[in-house]
Amino acid sequence: MRNRLKIFSGTAHPSLAKDICDYLDLPLSKLQSQKFSNDNTFIKIEENVRQCDCFVVQSSCPPVNDGLIELFIIMDALMRASARSITVVMPYFAYSRSDKKDQPRIAITAKLMANLLQTAGASRVITMDLHAEQIQGFFDIPVDQLQAAPVHGAYFKEIGLKDVVAVAPDAGSAKRTRLFAHQLRVPLAILDKRRGDNDDTSEVLHLIGDVDGKNAIIYDDEISTGGSMLNVMEALQANGARKIYGAVTHGILCGNAVEGFRDSSIEALVLTDTVPIPEEKRISKIRVLSVARLFGEAIRRINDGTSISALFTL
Amino acid sequence: MRNRLKIFSGTAHPSLAKDICDYLDLPLSKLQSQKFSNDNTFIKIEENVRQCDCFVVQSSCPPVNDGLIELFIIMDALMRASARSITVVMPYFAYSRSDKKDQPRIAITAKLMANLLQTAGASRVITMDLHAEQIQGFFDIPVDQLQAAPVHGAYFKEIGLKDVVAVAPDAGSAKRTRLFAHQLRVPLAILDKRRGDNDDTSEVLHLIGDVDGKNAIIYDDEISTGGSMLNVMEALQANGARKIYGAVTHGILCGNAVEGFRDSSIEALVLTDTVPIPEEKRISKIRVLSVARLFGEAIRRINDGTSISALFTL
Amino acid sequence: MRNRLKIFSGTAHPSLAKDICDYLDLPLSKLQSQKFSNDNTFIKIEENVRQCDCFVVQSSCPPVNDGLIELFIIMDALMRASARSITVVMPYFAYSRSDKKDQPRIAITAKLMANLLQTAGASRVITMDLHAEQIQGFFDIPVDQLQAAPVHGAYFKEIGLKDVVAVAPDAGSAKRTRLFAHQLRVPLAILDKRRGDNDDTSEVLHLIGDVDGKNAIIYDDEISTGGSMLNVMEALQANGARKIYGAVTHGILCGNAVEGFRDSSIEALVLTDTVPIPEEKRISKIRVLSVARLFGEAIRRINDGTSISALFTL
Amino acid sequence: MRNRLKIFSGTAHPSLAKDICDYLDLPLSKLQSQKFSNDNTFIKIEENVRQCDCFVVQSSCPPVNDGLIELFIIMDALMRASARSITVVMPYFAYSRSDKKDQPRIAITAKLMANLLQTAGASRVITMDLHAEQIQGFFDIPVDQLQAAPVHGAYFKEIGLKDVVAVAPDAGSAKRTRLFAHQLRVPLAILDKRRGDNDDTSEVLHLIGDVDGKNAIIYDDEISTGGSMLNVMEALQANGARKIYGAVTHGILCGNAVEGFRDSSIEALVLTDTVPIPEEKRISKIRVLSVARLFGEAIRRINDGTSISALFTL
Amino acid sequence: MRNRLKIFSGTAHPSLAKDICDYLDLPLSKLQSQKFSNDNTFIKIEENVRQCDCFVVQSSCPPVNDGLIELFIIMDALMRASARSITVVMPYFAYSRSDKKDQPRIAITAKLMANLLQTAGASRVITMDLHAEQIQGFFDIPVDQLQAAPVHGAYFKEIGLKDVVAVAPDAGSAKRTRLFAHQLRVPLAILDKRRGDNDDTSEVLHLIGDVDGKNAIIYDDEISTGGSMLNVMEALQANGARKIYGAVTHGILCGNAVEGFRDSSIEALVLTDTVPIPEEKRISKIRVLSVARLFGEAIRRINDGTSISALFTL
Amino acid sequence: MRNRLKIFSGTAHPSLAKDICDYLDLPLSKLQSQKFSNDNTFIKIEENVRQCDCFVVQSSCPPVNDGLIELFIIMDALMRASARSITVVMPYFAYSRSDKKDQPRIAITAKLMANLLQTAGASRVITMDLHAEQIQGFFDIPVDQLQAAPVHGAYFKEIGLKDVVAVAPDAGSAKRTRLFAHQLRVPLAILDKRRGDNDDTSEVLHLIGDVDGKNAIIYDDEISTGGSMLNVMEALQANGARKIYGAVTHGILCGNAVEGFRDSSIEALVLTDTVPIPEEKRISKIRVLSVARLFGEAIRRINDGTSISALFTL
Repeated sequence: MRNRLKIFSGTAHPSLAKDICDYLDLPLSKLQSQKFSNDNTFIKIEENVRQCDCFVVQSSCPPVNDGLIELFIIMDALMRASARSITVVMPYFAYSRSDKKDQPRIAITAKLMANLLQTAGASRVITMDLHAEQIQGFFDIPVDQLQAAPVHGAYFKEIGLKDVVAVAPDAGSAKRTRLFAHQLRVPLAILDKRRGDNDDTSEVLHLIGDVDGKNAIIYDDEISTGGSMLNVMEALQANGARKIYGAVTHGILCGNAVEGFRDSSIEALVLTDTVPIPEEKRISKIRVLSVARLFGEAIRRINDGTSISALFTL
Repeated sequence: MRNRLKIFSGTAHPSLAKDICDYLDLPLSKLQSQKFSNDNTFIKIEENVRQCDCFVVQSSCPPVNDGLIELFIIMDALMRASARSITVVMPYFAYSRSDKKDQPRIAITAKLMANLLQTAGASRVITMDLHAEQIQGFFDIPVDQLQAAPVHGAYFKEIGLKDVVAVAPDAGSAKRTRLFAHQLRVPLAILDKRRGDNDDTSEVLHLIGDVDGKNAIIYDDEISTGGSMLNVMEALQANGARKIYGAVTHGILCGNAVEGFRDSSIEALVLTDTVPIPEEKRISKIRVLSVARLFGEAIRRINDGTSISALFTL
Repeated sequence: MRNRLKIFSGTAHPSLAKDICDYLDLPLSKLQSQKFSNDNTFIKIEENVRQCDCFVVQSSCPPVNDGLIELFIIMDALMRASARSITVVMPYFAYSRSDKKDQPRIAITAKLMANLLQTAGASRVITMDLHAEQIQGFFDIPVDQLQAAPVHGAYFKEIGLKDVVAVAPDAGSAKRTRLFAHQLRVPLAILDKRRGDNDDTSEVLHLIGDVDGKNAIIYDDEISTGGSMLNVMEALQANGARKIYGAVTHGILCGNAVEGFRDSSIEALVLTDTVPIPEEKRISKIRVLSVARLFGEAIRRINDGTSISALFTL
Repeated sequence: MRNRLKIFSGTAHPSLAKDICDYLDLPLSKLQSQKFSNDNTFIKIEENVRQCDCFVVQSSCPPVNDGLIELFIIMDALMRASARSITVVMPYFAYSRSDKKDQPRIAITAKLMANLLQTAGASRVITMDLHAEQIQGFFDIPVDQLQAAPVHGAYFKEIGLKDVVAVAPDAGSAKRTRLFAHQLRVPLAILDKRRGDNDDTSEVLHLIGDVDGKNAIIYDDEISTGGSMLNVMEALQANGARKIYGAVTHGILCGNAVEGFRDSSIEALVLTDTVPIPEEKRISKIRVLSVARLFGEAIRRINDGTSISALFTL
Repeated sequence: MRNRLKIFSGTAHPSLAKDICDYLDLPLSKLQSQKFSNDNTFIKIEENVRQCDCFVVQSSCPPVNDGLIELFIIMDALMRASARSITVVMPYFAYSRSDKKDQPRIAITAKLMANLLQTAGASRVITMDLHAEQIQGFFDIPVDQLQAAPVHGAYFKEIGLKDVVAVAPDAGSAKRTRLFAHQLRVPLAILDKRRGDNDDTSEVLHLIGDVDGKNAIIYDDEISTGGSMLNVMEALQANGARKIYGAVTHGILCGNAVEGFRDSSIEALVLTDTVPIPEEKRISKIRVLSVARLFGEAIRRINDGTSISALFTL
Repeated sequence: MRNRLKIFSGTAHPSLAKDICDYLDLPLSKLQSQKFSNDNTFIKIEENVRQCDCFVVQSSCPPVNDGLIELFIIMDALMRASARSITVVMPYFAYSRSDKKDQPRIAITAKLMANLLQTAGASRVITMDLHAEQIQGFFDIPVDQLQAAPVHGAYFKEIGLKDVVAVAPDAGSAKRTRLFAHQLRVPLAILDKRRGDNDDTSEVLHLIGDVDGKNAIIYDDEISTGGSMLNVMEALQANGARKIYGAVTHGILCGNAVEGFRDSSIEALVLTDTVPIPEEKRISKIRVLSVARLFGEAIRRINDGTSISALFTL
């Protein structure tokens, strides 16, 4: 069976693809990806895939749109080369936060991406911690959504953190953080943005819940510039929190994010490697937990026809 | 133009359809709906619809599945009778809460409904207060989602309620209630279900935020048996809340819901008529605000090609 | 191979599903089906189906629309749980008689059902005695239509009935009854509804053909209230028929059907169990022949890749 | 409006297209149709059709497959030339009798044709007297099925035929003839093919019903070689019928059909012009009624948005 | 595995199908193809195909449209008989030259054919030497395009032809001939049609490149009447060419093609058997090379999951 | 009518969009396009488009993939905002040269783009000078392909160039250049790449045809680095050409293209503005002809329902 399972990587996150292959004890299959002088992406699959179950690892990290089009082209090449199935392995799902029409005349880009992936030939998607669970419903093909929470949970158990409160950085994150808090058996607090009294545009953070004297873990699915997490830290300290941690799945870390955390009083920002985090960003305050084992195991179970949900139930 | 616009009603909520027609000063178009002795639904459209823009009003109230199949059959009859477009007017959207896979091997039934509606011939959907905004993305056709919040807000402004706190009945409702609180410019509190200390199965309600001495409005999108809202009321009273109101869009009110509220200390439960609320349920503590004007105006604007979002921006 | 074949049952006709499993010597696979308090159906598949060929047994019996939506939801859950194929086993096909537009502006509901089943994820359908054979053409997936006629034929051969005439209850049934008569090698008679001479609305039954002194078998695909069959019996007796039998595939038996037959002079009404016929309806004049063996054998042959049509050719 | 309505004709039945245009007082729009030396059909639309509602008249007469491919190519050309809608006007529907799987491993070619027409770009179909009404359900677009029965009925009323019986040439035609008999308010008889007593292969015709001393009208949807109708005539004469007429919608008249009827004792064979009937076949015993007015009126009503079914209800 | 692979032939080119089967050491699977008296094609598959991978050999030769519709019907019958996959083996692709809109309001018939084949149920296509390589992109399923050039090349190597120039019969063939010339390592010349100086309609052939004293091979994908190749020969002789050969993949040879070549000074016209070339056309100047081995080998590799492109790379 | 026609521009080529609007005397409609810090593109349509015919101008210039995803998102936003139709105006079509599978296991990216555009909601495409005319057939929606040749032809007529030969830079361009040569009534020459005698990898240019003493116009659809055109110039000079011009539709001009032409002996490189050519690239040897009038006129004719092909026929 193994010789019918092939794993490819786009240029977005090759090291994760490599780690997944290592877990599965499979070689990474070869493809050529380049740009012509007119900026057109060119893909050539470099081994026979006829009747193979192909997995393409491509996370959605900058340059985001280049990565997406590259992925679509890889899929078209695999389809035309007679692959039996094409599974998109996208640990950080593209345009995950553009999942609703909360303003007039905007797109629901995450749904558009689901449609484009299906048009390009996807038979299945494996991803992790979607910004909203409803995004699974944007697809008419099976989606296996893995969870980073057990990985994060194991970390905090290991460092022996006590007297903990889980903090949702805004009301929209309350439900996600509620599940994390359940897992750790700790209480929940929520930061709430309110408009100032005399001013419509400025917003101030109000804490709902109690963090006084506690170790706080700010929990979120994605961090980019880190600006709002730093604001949350400030509010937590003003309300008496002891040590403050961040636990985040997708660590985009753009702009001055790394500098911001280095200079902050955060104890540790605990990320996963769903997107690449280069050496220079791996400062001592930033811990990166690997999810390659989880993705590798999911691929193994898909191939064997055994249950993936059993991975996440105790 | 007016003679090309036709409004039909299934058997789910004819009085709302009638009110919408009254707002638009149009007659309700005629169809025959019956069940054969073998329990098969039969539909006959009783007027010419060739090249007409047809709107079918059908809310998702018990018997839910009968209403859905009836709607699909009406749409098939309209399509085969050469209607130019078919707009589904479903104020309370079917299976709105089955919008994600939060357990293994369950359906995402709201997405399934979106697919079935499109297969049956829907060109567009008008609805109100979806359980999750992402459900709009389940469709590949335009969806106009109306909001009841301005109607609720106007009510509480009119009765002159002061010193208010908006209460989310659980973490998953935090974001929705946050928007409502923003609109009223009041603070937010959240009820959080936690597992008991020694026991995995029992859950207790913890209040996050401050309600002491305040008038509380519990805000939600849907109420069925009312059980959890009564629990929330209890927790609010235990935390010193003064008067307690409920503000809910879709008032299913099944089981002993009405008795429960009649016997409770709730000041008022303020619902809308997105689903039918019969006379016997309209006890003095239950106020029903009409959304017919909003739906009628949306239909008018769709017909005229003017903006619907402008209805909801101040 | 056997461990990749799973048979599920909706709530419509679990005993038939059980009998089919018994024939195949397989356990019935488990799912949970319930209704929430807001009348929404909830389904949870309770075993791993990854890469399995799943068969869902759901006949179209009252409550018809509940059964259909339940079936669609089961299929969505199976698809999202990565079933390899989903075969709908619907012995009595939904809305089978709504197969044409014989009035203006009605639906072709049987086609609509075919479309909805395909949208919900059907890879194949197994059914029995469609009201019109053309319904197979409503699908773009394989449909295996089984026939009850050999089961009926064997019954009448076994009881040694002689000097038989097959009777079509109306002109629309002539062709179906012609095939049945061919199989038994007996002549055919047809009951024809005509408008009265002076009156447009009343209709009287005229017999076409000869039944005098013969044993008559009225043949039909479906019986619901039984009213028209009782009228046919009357006309046959007036024309000199001896013993009168009914042979019908789908025995809906609603309203006063059972009482009507009990009090009639029918010798026997011979049905099959494509729909459930509860104990209280199984009076002595009503015989129920099992089709479980036929469905079980069809599933076995689909799984083995052997011919189903060979089942029906002598 | 009129300048947006264009009527084209394939090479199958240009004279009907011309007659329809005359009724509508419109010129026939121009296209070039030829075959290259490699037998490939080439089509060029010779006038601007941008944003036009185009109707393509193409009946399904020999060479059948050439006519179909020509029609598909015309439709592709119209679509790519930006026609707003394409209505297929196919008075005699292609492969109408291949509408079911009454043998193992055959096609349902009429459904295939429906699919191919939709793929090639059909927005709507107008046809007449489908072999089975269920064929309408093979489409997911509106189908307007016109009826020749009123035209036939008017003919027999005009010639003052009395004491009439309508005869179905086989059991499968019983329902169609039943409707015709209803319209004329006359009784029904049916010819039934039975296997001979000692011989499995030969079949003999048995008359069901009474024709003695009556004028018989054999009613059918299609006549090709005429062989079976001549057999029916023989059986009717043997049973004492007086004058015998044929009333048929689609007069294919292939092989020796014309000679057969010329030499027979048929009073008149009354056809319509849904397929071309050349001068040399129009012998005195063959009457051809025009349906151009009906098709023209249907097109007019589609264009105006008025009811077509009203054409057929008294 | 072998018992799951079935090869069928339409009526277009049964001898090629036979040769392919011989190469694969498989029997040709059986189907019945006939025309009813009304010119409707009827197909019956005469062996069980449940879960089989079916290949249907049907080249596009006159009568072209009959062959296409026959192919569509075979595919529908296979799909409804539960074939697992259907591969169309069309050595000469239908309407290959109608691949672009080089005049206003014409069809792109080759794309239409691709769409119709996919609608009728094609899972894959195998073909040879498409008129334009872009036609592969008309499909959303895998297309394996085989090449005749190695077969032609081997022929000319075998006869030891020296001092060769490859000649493109017009500018549109330059690229195809360029590839052929590359393979043979010979120079290229091109015939170019120009309008006469004083006359817009007449065209004269100008030679671009040098053929003086050389052996010329006119290379093309298809030959029908042969008229333009004879003109090219004349121009080549006028420019001093020695021996002249034709090398063409698809030898339609219609009209007086055979006579034309017999009477010409062509040395040899080397064709392949992608379309049938009957004995009477196989005059001494016409050589027919078999491609059955290539098609057989491609089918074998598809079945085994090994590379087809490796067949064409040295 | 005018108030239903809206023209939007992505960020790829706003000045062309502006020029088109100026031609049509319409304001450019407003949208907001930005990138979030995580590199996700965000689009907001800033005016009501309900029931409007929207045209989105987006040429395919670097950054190519960003421009494509931006376009898809604009289309999704327009669809969800209830636009009546969405026409993509893409003067230089994306991935136009990836139009065939001329190597094993590569994509046909131009077809993929056609599929993605249709999935994202395109009702129609307007483009110019596709690399291969077959690309029009990649779509199942109308494509209007405009031609730059008349614009180029007018230029060379205006400068009074005499004694001209049109030069195809390689065999694959022969047909395109043939049409251009026809239009100018001049002869054709072709540059042909051949492998060197002793070396498989190096290629040398051979001229086919005669350029001695003539003014040569090298004609092509796209120029990027300009390297191969400079090689062609060299070969032309070696063969005695007088003045050398380049005539190209899509002037990508990447790398050192501008410097290369500045330092070459080219008389003039005549481009169009299908892609933006910034001021610094507009050196004296580079002439840029505007196609805005042609695109504007095409949009006007689409809106009016008049012929576009008439624009290109004399």
